[in-house]
Amino acid sequence: MPAPPASPWKTPDDRLKEREIKREAVLLAAARAFNERGFHNTALEDVAAALKVTKPTIYYYGESKEALLAACYRRALETLDEVTRRSEGEVADARTRLHVLIVAYGEAILSIYGRCLTRVPDNSLSPPLRKELRAIKRTVDDRIRGVLLDGARDGTLAPTDTKMTAFAIAGALNAAALWFEEAGPSSPREISEHYADLFVAALKPA
Amino acid sequence: MPAPPASPWKTPDDRLKEREIKREAVLLAAARAFNERGFHNTALEDVAAALKVTKPTIYYYGESKEALLAACYRRALETLDEVTRRSEGEVADARTRLHVLIVAYGEAILSIYGRCLTRVPDNSLSPPLRKELRAIKRTVDDRIRGVLLDGARDGTLAPTDTKMTAFAIAGALNAAALWFEEAGPSSPREISEHYADLFVAALKPA
Repeated sequence: MPAPPASPWKTPDDRLKEREIKREAVLLAAARAFNERGFHNTALEDVAAALKVTKPTIYYYGESKEALLAACYRRALETLDEVTRRSEGEVADARTRLHVLIVAYGEAILSIYGRCLTRVPDNSLSPPLRKELRAIKRTVDDRIRGVLLDGARDGTLAPTDTKMTAFAIAGALNAAALWFEEAGPSSPREISEHYADLFVAALKPA
Repeated sequence: MPAPPASPWKTPDDRLKEREIKREAVLLAAARAFNERGFHNTALEDVAAALKVTKPTIYYYGESKEALLAACYRRALETLDEVTRRSEGEVADARTRLHVLIVAYGEAILSIYGRCLTRVPDNSLSPPLRKELRAIKRTVDDRIRGVLLDGARDGTLAPTDTKMTAFAIAGALNAAALWFEEAGPSSPREISEHYADLFVAALKPA
């Protein structure tokens, strides 16, 4: 039996999917604008212009500039949360897990949303939201410290001040996200691998 | 012969010295305010209030908020320039020089002026000044790369991508300056030593 001809009307599923795709495009355009010009120097008109739509269209996907920033932050932190959570479930030794974790953190923070997290100060977010998002940051930091501690236990990493070393790792990667340029010579993957090699070498057991 | 009694009138030297001391107090108060509240949220009145003087007194030492920020930036960069220049004249091996350099860079960037450099974006400075100050940053970066290159030559450091590793070192220290709190458990010296140990270990020759 031949497939019925495609209907020119969209199904509810199609419409939902389309809305998701459009929302993602709005968020990406907002994050790009925030990264390039800064949050305060970006107007919703700029985001609309980048997508060749009108400002009311943007409003349909994010009710304000602050809401768009919150959504960008949330994307970045959810990704960081997800990739670092994976490192907890792994059965590999801590040294291997630390390498995987640094590469994953690096790729996430060097992404468009990740860069937004490092470049735009969070004081434009509402206090409850800021509190919620900072809690995710702490969870991510705790996971880095956890792998460092596991490494001292299983002997695959030199014992270290886990708090300071976790800050050094996250700090170096966050700083990379500040200067990273898409047109630059190194990809997020290459930069992340370099940093992972460096920190794993720094913690080689004696 | 007994010393003549001290004159109640100040000498021109005394007055010059006093002006320098007061100017330093104004700059420090400004840097503290910028670090704590951000540049845009700081008014000259806040700086004056912290010193228990009036706003016109502040104007006498810095003609505007932008001029005070420029002076804070200059202090930070001159210190970074000076401490990293010292690493060039040293006769020690590159591994030792790298450790000294990282500790000196760390202490400079974790100082009040150094924190100002990392916390306040430079887009509030005039374009020519920004250009001049960015040139100092590049010189400092070149010196870090230079020591890394020297280490690959004299065999005391593992060969590395000097650009990326220099960024990792400066990035980790700059990030530390972002979260550093004077009331925190670790001193600038302790944090800097930790980072120096970490990066020197990371570059241990095979």
